Amino acid sequence: MVDFKYFTPTEVAFGKDSESHLADLVRKYGGTKVLIHYGGGSVVRSGLLDSVKAKLDAAGIAWVELGGVVPNPRLSLAHEGISLCRAEGVDFLLAVGGGSVIDSCKVIGYGMHYDGDVWDIYDGKYVPKACTPLGVVLTIPAAGSEMSDSAVITKDDGMVKRGYSNDLCRPKFAIMNPVRTFTLPPYQTAAGVTDMMMHTMERYFSHEDDMLLTDAVAEAVMRTVKQCGERVLDDPENYQLRAQIMWAGSLAHNDLTGCGSVWDFATHSIEHELSATYGATHGAGLAAIWPHWAEYVLAENPTRFAQFAVNVLDVPNDFKSPERTARAGIAAMVDFYHRIGMPANLPELIGRPATEEEIAEMAFKATHGKTITLGGLKKLGYDDVVAIYRMANRG
Amino acid sequence: MVDFKYFTPTEVAFGKDSESHLADLVRKYGGTKVLIHYGGGSVVRSGLLDSVKAKLDAAGIAWVELGGVVPNPRLSLAHEGISLCRAEGVDFLLAVGGGSVIDSCKVIGYGMHYDGDVWDIYDGKYVPKACTPLGVVLTIPAAGSEMSDSAVITKDDGMVKRGYSNDLCRPKFAIMNPVRTFTLPPYQTAAGVTDMMMHTMERYFSHEDDMLLTDAVAEAVMRTVKQCGERVLDDPENYQLRAQIMWAGSLAHNDLTGCGSVWDFATHSIEHELSATYGATHGAGLAAIWPHWAEYVLAENPTRFAQFAVNVLDVPNDFKSPERTARAGIAAMVDFYHRIGMPANLPELIGRPATEEEIAEMAFKATHGKTITLGGLKKLGYDDVVAIYRMANRG
Repeated sequence: MVDFKYFTPTEVAFGKDSESHLADLVRKYGGTKVLIHYGGGSVVRSGLLDSVKAKLDAAGIAWVELGGVVPNPRLSLAHEGISLCRAEGVDFLLAVGGGSVIDSCKVIGYGMHYDGDVWDIYDGKYVPKACTPLGVVLTIPAAGSEMSDSAVITKDDGMVKRGYSNDLCRPKFAIMNPVRTFTLPPYQTAAGVTDMMMHTMERYFSHEDDMLLTDAVAEAVMRTVKQCGERVLDDPENYQLRAQIMWAGSLAHNDLTGCGSVWDFATHSIEHELSATYGATHGAGLAAIWPHWAEYVLAENPTRFAQFAVNVLDVPNDFKSPERTARAGIAAMVDFYHRIGMPANLPELIGRPATEEEIAEMAFKATHGKTITLGGLKKLGYDDVVAIYRMANRG
Repeated sequence: MVDFKYFTPTEVAFGKDSESHLADLVRKYGGTKVLIHYGGGSVVRSGLLDSVKAKLDAAGIAWVELGGVVPNPRLSLAHEGISLCRAEGVDFLLAVGGGSVIDSCKVIGYGMHYDGDVWDIYDGKYVPKACTPLGVVLTIPAAGSEMSDSAVITKDDGMVKRGYSNDLCRPKFAIMNPVRTFTLPPYQTAAGVTDMMMHTMERYFSHEDDMLLTDAVAEAVMRTVKQCGERVLDDPENYQLRAQIMWAGSLAHNDLTGCGSVWDFATHSIEHELSATYGATHGAGLAAIWPHWAEYVLAENPTRFAQFAVNVLDVPNDFKSPERTARAGIAAMVDFYHRIGMPANLPELIGRPATEEEIAEMAFKATHGKTITLGGLKKLGYDDVVAIYRMANRG
C-alpha cells in the first residue's frame, strides 16, 4: 500500500430535482458570464439546453454558447472556445453533456490562462498554472470526467489523442439527473458501463495488494456496475438502475477506488489510438483491448486477477491454481462484454482485422514515438503494445 | 433512493510520509498565522507536537498554541480559543489530535466569525455564515471529523452535549499517518472502530433500500472495519491494519456511505447523554446503546437488518424469516462488541445500572426538553428514548 493523496472537491447534486440547483451553484462558484458548451442533437432535442438557458436567464446570469463537440473531442473546437471566451469575458464554463464535452471545457479552461497553444500541455512543454472554473450538467455517465482531474483531447492534425491530469481542472460542481440518461441508446449505455468499470480496473490491477478497504470498495463498485449494466439494457427507464450507473461512473474515476495502489492505465492509452484511428467509441475500444492486455500481463500478478474473477465476476475459485481462476475471469469478462453488446477484439470492433501498418503506427503514437512506456503492473514498450494489438487482432 | 448532495472537499494526504506536506498545505489554504490546537499527553510525548512546530517554523509560518482539549470537548476551552485567535490575528486553525480536538477547532472557527456566544449555534438561535479555515493532523481515527461537516461540543454548565452540521466547517486538509496510531491503547482502538462502524450504520438503517451502490460500498466499509478491528487488537503495530482503519474512519463519515438514504443518527444522540452524564468514551457508549436501539426499531424494516446481518456480519441467512436473521445479526454484533472489549449495555459501560432519575434526565436532554424527535427509521420521542435506556439497563 503506497502513500496517496485524495482530493475530490466537486460538489455533487444528484437526483430527479438536481437541476434546480444550477443557478445557485454557478453563482456559488463565481460565475457571472458563462460559456454553455455542448455537443449536438440530444441535449437540444431533450429540451435540456433550453432549460439550462432559462435557468441562467431567470437568475440574471449572462451566457454565451458553443456547441458542436464530437466524441473524441477536437483541439480545433477548444481553440475556438478559448477565443470566444476571451472575447466575451467568460468567467465560468458549463459543460452540458458527457465526457467529451467536459474534457473540451477543461481544455478551454486551461487555454484561457495560457498565451501559447494549449496543446503544449499535452506535449509536455507547459505545465498549467490555472484553469477557469467549470461546472457540469451530466447527460452521459461513463467518462467520470465530472469529478476527475483528467482531460483527453485529439489534435486534428494527425489525429493524435492524448490525456493530461491535473487537479486544477476538477469541476466545481456536477449536476446528475439519472432521468436524463433514460434515452441513452443501448450501445452508448454499454460502452459507458465498460468505460467506468475500466476506470476502476485500471486502479485495481497493481503489484500492491494490501489495500483491503480500497479493494473492498473497488470490488463493490465494479460488481454493482456489472449487475446494473446487464439489467438496464432490458429496462432502460428504470430509475434505480440508471441512478446506480450514473453515480458509479463518478466514484469509479474520482480516485476513491485507487487509494493506496499503483495505477495502470495502459489499456486506456492503447485504446486511445483506436478511437483516433477508427473513430471507435472509447468504451467499445476498451472492451476490444482489455482481455488481450490481461492475458499479456497476467503472469505479473495472477492472484490479483484471480481475486478479481472471484470477487467481481463470481467465478468459482480454483484454489489449486490462481492462474486457472484468473483465466476463467478473463473469459467471464469476454462473456460479459458480449452479453452487453460490446466487442472483445479488433475485428469485432472495426469489422476487419487491423493491418500491420496500422498496428505499427498506433503503437508508435501510443508510446509517443517509442519514447515512453505504458502501465504499471507491467511496463509496456513499443514491442509490447504491438504484441497486444496483434493478440486483439486474432479475434 | 432520495436525491442527495455529496461534497467532500477535504484534501487528504495519507501515509507514512504524509506529514511532510504540512507546511505546503497550510500555505495552500492561506494560513499565515496558525493556532495549533491539541489535547495533552500523547501528542507531546510522541514528539508530534514539536515536529509540527518545527515544520511551521522552517516554512516561516507563525503560530500560537492552545492545548488542553479533553474527550467530549468543552465550550469553555473553545471560548478561550476564540479570544486567543482574535487577539493574535490567527487566520488558520490546525487540529493535532482526534475528533475532540477537531471539533473544538471547528467551534473556535465558527466563534471567530460571530459576536455572540457560539453556543447560540447549538441552541438553534444562530446560523453561522463563516468558519475560519482549518486543517487536521489526525492521531485518533474514529470520529471522522477530519472530513465531516459536524462538530460536537459540551457546554460546561449542565454538561449539555450537542452536535451541529454545516459544510462551512469541513477541514481544508487532513494529514493521516497510520504510524501515529500504533500506540493507541486497545480500548481507544476498539471504541474508534465502534464509532466509525456506527457512522455508516446510522446512514444504512433507512426505509430507503434501493441504493444498490451505496449499500455495496457501505457494506464494504463496515465489513473491512470489523475484520481489521478484530485483528489489530492482537497486532497493534501492523501498518496495513492501522491504515485500513484510519482511512475507513474518514470514508465512514464523509457521507459517501449515505448517498441516497435517509439517515438515522438516533443512537448518536442517545449516546451523547451517556458521555455527558458519565464521561463515557463515545464509542463505548454507542456499543452500549445500539443493540437495544436495534431491537426497539427492528420491526420498522426487518429485511434491512437481515441484509446487514448477512452482508456485513456473515450471519447465515434464514430465508424463511428476515426477523430471525435480523435478530441473529444483533446478537452477532453484541458478540463482536464483547470480542473487542466493548460493553453492550449500560451496566457494562458504567459499572452499575443507570437510575430512573438519570434515565429521565438523559431522555429529557436528548430530546431537547421533549421538543424534538430523534432518528429517521423510527422517530423517537421522549418515551421511546426512556424505553431504549431501560432496555440497555437490563444488561
